[in-house]
Amino acid sequence: MRAIQLAPALQFTTKCPKPTPPAGEALVRVHQAGICATDLQLIKGYMEFQGNLGHEFVGTVEEAEGNDHLKGKRVVGEINAACRSCPTCKAGRLTHCPNRTTLGIDRRDGAFADYLCLPIANLYSLPEEISNDQAVFIEPLAAACRILEQISIVPSDRVIIIGDGRLGLLCAQVLHTTNCKLTVLGRHEEKLNLLRQQGIETTMQPEEVTPGVDIVIEATGSPDGLKLANQLIRPQGTLVLKSTYHGQTTFDFTSLVVNEVNLVGSRCGPFPKAIELLKRTRVSVEPLIHARYSLDEGMKAIQHAEARGTLKVLLTMD
Amino acid sequence: MRAIQLAPALQFTTKCPKPTPPAGEALVRVHQAGICATDLQLIKGYMEFQGNLGHEFVGTVEEAEGNDHLKGKRVVGEINAACRSCPTCKAGRLTHCPNRTTLGIDRRDGAFADYLCLPIANLYSLPEEISNDQAVFIEPLAAACRILEQISIVPSDRVIIIGDGRLGLLCAQVLHTTNCKLTVLGRHEEKLNLLRQQGIETTMQPEEVTPGVDIVIEATGSPDGLKLANQLIRPQGTLVLKSTYHGQTTFDFTSLVVNEVNLVGSRCGPFPKAIELLKRTRVSVEPLIHARYSLDEGMKAIQHAEARGTLKVLLTMD
Ligand SMILES: [Zn+2]
Ligand SMILES: [Zn+2]
Ligand SMILES: [Zn+2]
Ligand SMILES: [Zn+2]
Repeated sequence: MRAIQLAPALQFTTKCPKPTPPAGEALVRVHQAGICATDLQLIKGYMEFQGNLGHEFVGTVEEAEGNDHLKGKRVVGEINAACRSCPTCKAGRLTHCPNRTTLGIDRRDGAFADYLCLPIANLYSLPEEISNDQAVFIEPLAAACRILEQISIVPSDRVIIIGDGRLGLLCAQVLHTTNCKLTVLGRHEEKLNLLRQQGIETTMQPEEVTPGVDIVIEATGSPDGLKLANQLIRPQGTLVLKSTYHGQTTFDFTSLVVNEVNLVGSRCGPFPKAIELLKRTRVSVEPLIHARYSLDEGMKAIQHAEARGTLKVLLTMD
Repeated sequence: MRAIQLAPALQFTTKCPKPTPPAGEALVRVHQAGICATDLQLIKGYMEFQGNLGHEFVGTVEEAEGNDHLKGKRVVGEINAACRSCPTCKAGRLTHCPNRTTLGIDRRDGAFADYLCLPIANLYSLPEEISNDQAVFIEPLAAACRILEQISIVPSDRVIIIGDGRLGLLCAQVLHTTNCKLTVLGRHEEKLNLLRQQGIETTMQPEEVTPGVDIVIEATGSPDGLKLANQLIRPQGTLVLKSTYHGQTTFDFTSLVVNEVNLVGSRCGPFPKAIELLKRTRVSVEPLIHARYSLDEGMKAIQHAEARGTLKVLLTMD
């Protein structure tokens, strides 16, 4: 089958063997996949990953031993494959299982391929209302929904999202559903426009944001975003870290103590919540699609995704 | 009157004018005061403070305009004098008032003197059961109690306190009242012994602590403590920062995101709770007193407090 993989150099191949699902796993034929910032980091050596890339996908189940009702179903999948037997799993923290593999990220072949395998328990079948274009956004949208599981946001809260990349735009739409006083601080007129069309306030001027913000979401992927977040947050406010940084960051921890700030790291989130938001058309993801390539042109697609200002680039397998 | 002050050099004086309390403030004759790590930092230039040092005290009210019932009462005092009219104060976050002055720390003369002034609203009169020796620990004990206001700790939680300084020992006793599975990781046999006598588990070997801890309290005052805390915490665990660090610290923020750690800055706390713990003899503070000097010998007392391994040094004014 075809695949875009790290072997360890990035390559397109037509000679990747079609996988055989191990016990408890399904074989999924991939329709579409989205290229994400994490993929670009993996290409640069993050995690020293080897194998097929890709973790944002929609596909159809071809085999699911003992779960014949799943066969032919259109699905998306939670990317962390937990062991389900360690203390962390038994405590319900499946996404943090120390034995986990992660689709296209950590010791598990990913979705930039004609087929992939995932544990049957990881799959969510999709309602008809959700298109394939929408479905590839379910994984990052779930990550945005994670914020609402971790902290409570009420309408009187003033909330700032810093960053207007893919993650920032999804977080904005998810947080907008809480009716909080939301402003997105970004750098790209065109991207912020997508939010304004939905009635979300935006600005490109940090100095226009009055400090003393109740909740700040850092989604820039840059330590500068973290430092700005720390300047804007009010005493006893909550600062959600949604993006990761390369290497070590220098930071003034004393200000966190003096201001009693609550810093919350936030990663993968609930697929059912993301599916519900799309089904009820509470979020709009199609405008984030900037380009579409067939898997055969995957190398070009990745180049496109790497270009500054690009939102989502899709790979189509069908 | 006598005072130990920064002018800006550290000095003992007998010629400090006795203060006249402004409207809404009380004049307090100081009986005893405790020397704290913050005082030693102020002497090194932190906050560029000038004036009488000292913020841990017990005294007797001599004047309290319009509050005659307070006259002659033995009191302790909340060290942050808030404006009580700004949005932060109106939101109930008095200890974070941007206009606040802080006793012996920020634009307000402190307790290493025969007299001090504090807003009447900041004072708490003491029950007979609490001695003057105990009372000087109420301020730092309240700071330890702050943790219980910020996070919930249940008996099944495994909790590690890193640091066996004054703050670590007080946090340990406060957290011990929750019946959680507590271990204190320290460096001083003698200090840890004080805790073991109260049935608190201690260790001097970081490698003896199994990682995957639910709650870690960082109370070392060193960035190394923070890094160790980050190694011990479980995914989705809570890391409480109780101590401040000099300058900027380098840190791996990505691990906070990947492990979805909750970092909580923690500072000043509830005096009534600290008073209650002492009254009910749930904590033992007298063994932390290492030395006692008259105010006249205050310069010697500070030298003693600066010596490695010293716990609490008291200044006596009477
Ligand atoms: Zn992704
Ligand atoms: Zn597991
Ligand atoms: Zn202190
Ligand atoms: Zn105020």
